[in-house]
Amino acid sequence: MAASLARVYSCNVELALEILGGKWKPVILAHLKEGPLRYGELRSLIRTSGRRLMSDKMLTQRLLDLEEQGLVERQKRGGRGAPSVYRLTKRGEGLRPALTALHDWAAAVAPEVGATVLEPPAKKERRFESA
Amino acid sequence: MAASLARVYSCNVELALEILGGKWKPVILAHLKEGPLRYGELRSLIRTSGRRLMSDKMLTQRLLDLEEQGLVERQKRGGRGAPSVYRLTKRGEGLRPALTALHDWAAAVAPEVGATVLEPPAKKERRFESA
Repeated sequence: MAASLARVYSCNVELALEILGGKWKPVILAHLKEGPLRYGELRSLIRTSGRRLMSDKMLTQRLLDLEEQGLVERQKRGGRGAPSVYRLTKRGEGLRPALTALHDWAAAVAPEVGATVLEPPAKKERRFESA
Repeated sequence: MAASLARVYSCNVELALEILGGKWKPVILAHLKEGPLRYGELRSLIRTSGRRLMSDKMLTQRLLDLEEQGLVERQKRGGRGAPSVYRLTKRGEGLRPALTALHDWAAAVAPEVGATVLEPPAKKERRFESA
């Protein structure tokens, strides 16, 4: 976790948002809370809308940030040559209630603000691994 | 609510964070979920840490944004000359579970990351109004 966090915050929500910084880290975490994902799976979920929302460079950097912050871990699954998957750590799992609450709130607000949210495909459809 | 929200989002969490944009709006909302506050009260709560975390200009602008987004409303309380207070609207109240979850998560994580969070004074102590 970055050393710059060792300072004084006016409230816990400020600290939470400082750690999460921006919208992309929460979006990555929100996808990973549905289960472990390979890099390519994560990328295609974030690009569901067909627009290039996030560059590869940015996604890679955000994943490194999240690993460094102890929110996400990279795991080898299976034998030699098997692709690694990203999954939430225990600290990352702790964000599940917040992510779910943000999800539910936005789902209610979306029609009121004219936003279209593409729900990702159901979990079984987006599991490419043979596991 | 800004017209720019009428676009496609890859997930609801992305939309939520787009609306909340940054850390200061959630911080303002987190304070207001404890009850209505006058501008000066809100400002001093955010500056609890003694550092000038947020300029007056920025706080005023964030409050205007939140009003425009229908998350916060400004209300006259009492008679002529009485100061107005800011309070959560119904839409803003909908964020309570998310704000509470973020708060609780950060409270657990703070000691691990070496962050100091100044809990605001208890509600009764920070009510300046004679009401």
